[in-house]
Amino acid sequence: MLTYNFERNSKAPLYEQLYDFIKSDIISGKIKGGDKLPSKREFAAHLGISKVTVEAAYSALISEGYVYSLEKKGYYCEKNLALPEKTASAPPAKKEERKKIDIDLSSNAVPGTQFPFSVWSRLMREITLNYSRELLDPIPFEGAWILRSALSAYLMSERGMNISPEQIFIGAGSEYLYTQIIRLLGAENIYGIENPSYHKISKVYSMNGALIRQIDITGETLDAEALENIGINIFHISPSHNFPTGTVMGAKERHDILSWANKKGRRYVIEDDFDSELRFEGKPIPPMQTLDSAGKVIYINTFSKTISPALRIGYMVLPEELADRYRSTLSFNSCTVSSFDQYALADFISRGYFERHLSRTKKYYRILREKLLAVYEKSKIKPCAELCESQAGLHFALKLRTDLPDENIKARLASVGIKAAFMSDYCSAPIDRPYELLINYSGLDEDKFLRALAAIYEIIC
Amino acid sequence: MLTYNFERNSKAPLYEQLYDFIKSDIISGKIKGGDKLPSKREFAAHLGISKVTVEAAYSALISEGYVYSLEKKGYYCEKNLALPEKTASAPPAKKEERKKIDIDLSSNAVPGTQFPFSVWSRLMREITLNYSRELLDPIPFEGAWILRSALSAYLMSERGMNISPEQIFIGAGSEYLYTQIIRLLGAENIYGIENPSYHKISKVYSMNGALIRQIDITGETLDAEALENIGINIFHISPSHNFPTGTVMGAKERHDILSWANKKGRRYVIEDDFDSELRFEGKPIPPMQTLDSAGKVIYINTFSKTISPALRIGYMVLPEELADRYRSTLSFNSCTVSSFDQYALADFISRGYFERHLSRTKKYYRILREKLLAVYEKSKIKPCAELCESQAGLHFALKLRTDLPDENIKARLASVGIKAAFMSDYCSAPIDRPYELLINYSGLDEDKFLRALAAIYEIIC
Repeated sequence: MLTYNFERNSKAPLYEQLYDFIKSDIISGKIKGGDKLPSKREFAAHLGISKVTVEAAYSALISEGYVYSLEKKGYYCEKNLALPEKTASAPPAKKEERKKIDIDLSSNAVPGTQFPFSVWSRLMREITLNYSRELLDPIPFEGAWILRSALSAYLMSERGMNISPEQIFIGAGSEYLYTQIIRLLGAENIYGIENPSYHKISKVYSMNGALIRQIDITGETLDAEALENIGINIFHISPSHNFPTGTVMGAKERHDILSWANKKGRRYVIEDDFDSELRFEGKPIPPMQTLDSAGKVIYINTFSKTISPALRIGYMVLPEELADRYRSTLSFNSCTVSSFDQYALADFISRGYFERHLSRTKKYYRILREKLLAVYEKSKIKPCAELCESQAGLHFALKLRTDLPDENIKARLASVGIKAAFMSDYCSAPIDRPYELLINYSGLDEDKFLRALAAIYEIIC
Repeated sequence: MLTYNFERNSKAPLYEQLYDFIKSDIISGKIKGGDKLPSKREFAAHLGISKVTVEAAYSALISEGYVYSLEKKGYYCEKNLALPEKTASAPPAKKEERKKIDIDLSSNAVPGTQFPFSVWSRLMREITLNYSRELLDPIPFEGAWILRSALSAYLMSERGMNISPEQIFIGAGSEYLYTQIIRLLGAENIYGIENPSYHKISKVYSMNGALIRQIDITGETLDAEALENIGINIFHISPSHNFPTGTVMGAKERHDILSWANKKGRRYVIEDDFDSELRFEGKPIPPMQTLDSAGKVIYINTFSKTISPALRIGYMVLPEELADRYRSTLSFNSCTVSSFDQYALADFISRGYFERHLSRTKKYYRILREKLLAVYEKSKIKPCAELCESQAGLHFALKLRTDLPDENIKARLASVGIKAAFMSDYCSAPIDRPYELLINYSGLDEDKFLRALAAIYEIIC
């Protein structure tokens, strides 16, 4: 029987690997037209993978015309293979690209061990039993009441936010919610975004036709007067933890920004609290939303960092007046998150699983961070670099003592299978912060980090 | 112990009903400040509902300040109830409104019995076991490969569409995908939409700043020349089954529209195939996409009608050139559907459950339709109305022999708990189609339909 060796650490899923193996055997002629392929059950047992994985690979091969199936007989290699030449000669670029990356420092992946699979799977079973009718009711555009209610209790007890479930709106991720905020407030406003900040923020604003102004946050501290002169009326910030600088905004600055917002009617602050729950020392910082008594702060958060980006659930908390306006102008929009996921998450939160999960996750990352910091302490690179970290979030910055351009270092790292991003990637002119390599560590281990540091050392020292 | 009678047929979920019962008992003083509420387990057993339902009601009451919990002691009625007066005096309008509706003719709800709960719940368990690593991988912005591949095989075998998974893009419902199409093609185009058509289509276009022109489809047949004069360059249609007219577009008209589109580079057809799979007689009509050899048809479909709107999964098939453009310009958008739902749906389709589910669903609706038609045949209303139905979709139109304005009839039906919509609700001037009441029947039964017909009879005869 056909035997393949799977790369267990590859980012390509098993079924995709199997699909690639079989496809290349068909193209190379090792498997010939009309050859019978192993049955799903036998093949799965032989390769030590699940039947569903074989099924997925076969189904992909069938859809591309490499394989056909005969009812009650099995799977066969297509005889007439002139047809699929196009797909054969142009394999999806993404897969190729993904395989070349051995170590990814440029983005965070939630390690599989950290996802609460068994609880999640149990909750899914329970909610389909307990809420069978509710699950099929039309989802209110704001999101399921049960989730909004669980979130309001959670935000009260964990973040000190005194808000009603009526102010909470669920959406398929932060980017979707940014778009909704622009629709609510209007694209004709001038939106200030932090420079540097996460790429997607400015992209989403631009895609929606909103005017943006990049506001340098690495120089002098912003005060109300400076903001007055910048000429924006909405300010999108991450006061608890800016990405990528890691900066935590001080109390004075928070108050200054609020008093700027309070001065005029159409001014608002969008508080993007995307990873504040992942602080490793001390209590999480209370959101600016808790300081706001004038209905000026739109709070936005996501479960992408705390549970997994695979869930695609974010939420925003609108001041009452904006919540009413949102309901009256945009409620024809359907909610974008499935009721199954909303009910499961509601139970996950209200039954205390989320808090336990968070504390386990924080512990996991704290230990991982300590291990990686120990690796760094012992590494050869120390004299040529300085590691900056802020007790929060899932990345460090590594300031390199070099004068090689960032792009040059990135290209040389890419050639050895390391994907990297620099602080400068997140900056727009006029900020100039070269030589700061970002280490997004959530998917790393000591070995990978050691190898990454060795590769960087080779380039700059 | 507190005893409440639940309205099992109410649209309000059980937990919401329980929440309302307890809340009104607290407000009325039946439950007093400091009173201990029953434990979740006992209360659930006593009321014959699940513990999770009690939990959800308690959690909503806690979040609104009516109830507090003491660790290891239980749940108590809040002592100081001056605070929540605001929520008490202003109960959410939605809940009130929902309760008043006894029979809803205005929209379709998927009957709970029709959702494949046990299969879905089993698939969810299996995918968390089989794909644990893949589920946490970043979802490609196009959607999970496994789902796109299953869809491409399904569309080939069931709809005759010869497309590759690379042309398929997954999104959180049709409305989200409409927005993405406008972003891809540009809001500066002039979009034609059918008049009448589903409300949301024009609303989504307007919300995204796109120019729209309503095109009357109830008058003369559209031909290429007429389209030429209308001055649109993108035409959004549902050729397999227009909502609400039920019209199926003929072959000549389809070819005419395609030849109009073929004449100029920036012309496209958006084929919104939202309920073509629910035909009750004969084969489903092949999509216009299968007639398109020039890359002019964008095909869009959803699982809202065939499985449930609660899933929030739609997809679009782009011609290759547009698929490439979409990838190169908008791939910074994250996919809006959770990987769990995508993997479960992929397995649901590729393991044949979807086909079996569809045929069961069609059978259910066919029988329901026949029963309702028999009710109509025997009803007193027959001389004052004409029932029009098109062997497809989930609604009839009832042409009333009356000269009462539609709004008047709607208001009088509402006063007896019947929510209704008319053809005219979906028309923009200059179309004038009064007196056609729409019967969205998927959530009805014989008794409800009989009562609805009797109420209509009372008003118009």
